[in-house]
Amino acid sequence: MKQINVKIPALPRNSYPIYIGQNFLDTLLTKIQNDHPDRSLFIITDSNLAENNHLKKLTAEKDIPNYIINPPGEKSKHIQTVVKIIEKMEQQFYARDSLIIALGGGTVGDIAGFAAAVYKRGIHVIQIPTTTVAQADSSVGGKTGVDSTISKNAFGAFWNPRAVYIDVATLNTLDQTQYLAGLVESLKHALIADEKYFTFFEKNIDKIINRDIETLLIIAEKNCRIKAKIVAEDPTEKNKRRILNYGHTVGHAAESASRFELLHGQAVAIGIIAAGLIEQKMKLAEPDQLRRIKILLEKMKMPTKMPKNIKSNQIIQLIKRDKKAVNKWPKFVLLEKTGKALCKNQQWAHDVAPETVKDVLAKLY
Amino acid sequence: MKQINVKIPALPRNSYPIYIGQNFLDTLLTKIQNDHPDRSLFIITDSNLAENNHLKKLTAEKDIPNYIINPPGEKSKHIQTVVKIIEKMEQQFYARDSLIIALGGGTVGDIAGFAAAVYKRGIHVIQIPTTTVAQADSSVGGKTGVDSTISKNAFGAFWNPRAVYIDVATLNTLDQTQYLAGLVESLKHALIADEKYFTFFEKNIDKIINRDIETLLIIAEKNCRIKAKIVAEDPTEKNKRRILNYGHTVGHAAESASRFELLHGQAVAIGIIAAGLIEQKMKLAEPDQLRRIKILLEKMKMPTKMPKNIKSNQIIQLIKRDKKAVNKWPKFVLLEKTGKALCKNQQWAHDVAPETVKDVLAKLY
Repeated sequence: MKQINVKIPALPRNSYPIYIGQNFLDTLLTKIQNDHPDRSLFIITDSNLAENNHLKKLTAEKDIPNYIINPPGEKSKHIQTVVKIIEKMEQQFYARDSLIIALGGGTVGDIAGFAAAVYKRGIHVIQIPTTTVAQADSSVGGKTGVDSTISKNAFGAFWNPRAVYIDVATLNTLDQTQYLAGLVESLKHALIADEKYFTFFEKNIDKIINRDIETLLIIAEKNCRIKAKIVAEDPTEKNKRRILNYGHTVGHAAESASRFELLHGQAVAIGIIAAGLIEQKMKLAEPDQLRRIKILLEKMKMPTKMPKNIKSNQIIQLIKRDKKAVNKWPKFVLLEKTGKALCKNQQWAHDVAPETVKDVLAKLY
Repeated sequence: MKQINVKIPALPRNSYPIYIGQNFLDTLLTKIQNDHPDRSLFIITDSNLAENNHLKKLTAEKDIPNYIINPPGEKSKHIQTVVKIIEKMEQQFYARDSLIIALGGGTVGDIAGFAAAVYKRGIHVIQIPTTTVAQADSSVGGKTGVDSTISKNAFGAFWNPRAVYIDVATLNTLDQTQYLAGLVESLKHALIADEKYFTFFEKNIDKIINRDIETLLIIAEKNCRIKAKIVAEDPTEKNKRRILNYGHTVGHAAESASRFELLHGQAVAIGIIAAGLIEQKMKLAEPDQLRRIKILLEKMKMPTKMPKNIKSNQIIQLIKRDKKAVNKWPKFVLLEKTGKALCKNQQWAHDVAPETVKDVLAKLY
């Protein structure tokens, strides 16, 4: 056999900005149009945003074509929603010089980001996250994905936005459960990467729960700095970026098993407790750590036990399907101590025996 | 507003190998398994390959899960085929450590390449092209894509294979029209990039038509070297890569207008003649060039005139919708002389007045 090598040129280092502020939604579209004069704009949002006035604030009097995801939330985070969006864009002759604006929560960002990644082999996207979970997590880092009928994020791509705009005032329209569930990702950032941030969380938990706007600005910035740093070190999740999945292995399984009765943050709260119990079993944690976490989660009215209608056997089956599984069992992110994910032999995710996980699950009821 | 910058690290220069040989299909799977011991393999192919023994040759006695695209060809090159493939892989618990083997022609490669690009945010793919068009063209360069109900390649991604294996003996099962139509892409490579290759084509046209295996090995290598060089210079088709679209502007329109009665290569043959006539009108070509091309295409039994049932007005309408069109009229790739695409002001695609194209189309009947 003869061999020819095809060179793939290097891609230069790059970056995108995250802007954080309050009450700027009504002037943002003009800025985007000025920044991208040659791009045809298309807005992807959901029926919540259309009803609660954020879409109107963004577009003002301007007539920008859009796709309104309905129903909002996880149910629509499906490949068939992306098919509908792309066919609508094609019918309106959007070409490669298009720019998608994603206005909404995590599911809007994931759907719109994936649509941008695959439309005509990739077009620009700008993220405007409007929920606690999206502002803390899903708008930074370039992960996009939608579900198949079989499992979550079966379809996905790494696709960085051109810019992210975080207006913390948009959080005011969230209902309290959604608002608080989204903060679990912020708590996760503190746990894996920043002990001081965890202490800030403990000290300011009442202000946080009451949506004090200055506190929200601090949290938004902390989250973005932590996540941006981790993502820059390992953009495609070969190793360190995995720590962002702290609490997510059991969390995703619980979310899935509940058929999305549990909000993502609620499920991750349970997953964080599960991870804490594993750490205790493996003698990793500081003695007081899990108790402190539990107090915070309880103040945030998050579940710390598995719902009774979800059987532990179901969770085990779903863990086997985890997309990071190798030989049908995933590695787990664990804490060395509060504010520091465990790194051993240069690895950030670790073997935990199925038996250990089963024991821990039994304690979660 | 506060601004935080998210760094996207540089991606290093990279490469993948293309292996060219004959009759190695029955030992290839062992090689792939040895090269990728930790990967779970999944084969994507189509019913032609399942029937003509190539799939059996590849897998021998080994039991590798697969998805057989049926019907084969353009009709199945649709996002819903990808959905079915991905759901089948999920049901069998394929994780990120999977490797898709694409065995087949251009549509198999496009479908499997896109499935690999989006499955769990991207997994490995190895291409084993088995048609003249796929060996010359679609297995090199990382373009993947599938159609929506509205248009061709609406969904797509740039996703490079880990390796390409070209076994020219697999061409023996193609019917003669398909075989010859696929060679039009090889002729195109000669025209845009290598005058000596064009002369080789003229001298060896009888051997080529009769599938002389030594000649096929030479052609496979020439094609890959030419395409690999162009793609390495401009992987995402910002400029020079466009020359690979020589003959394709009128060609795509003819293919589409014929509702795929014309094979891709047949349509591109007509498109190459159209480009040649435009060059004559613009006084670019060598006097003898178009005649030499015509002789070759006629020996290859390719059409050199537009089918009478396709009206020139239809072609004009379709050209306006070309996905590279700006203000509804695309630029054209043209030859400066045999073996050399025209580059003017550092641009590789050029303005041609609609009137000129209309005049040329009139001569095509």
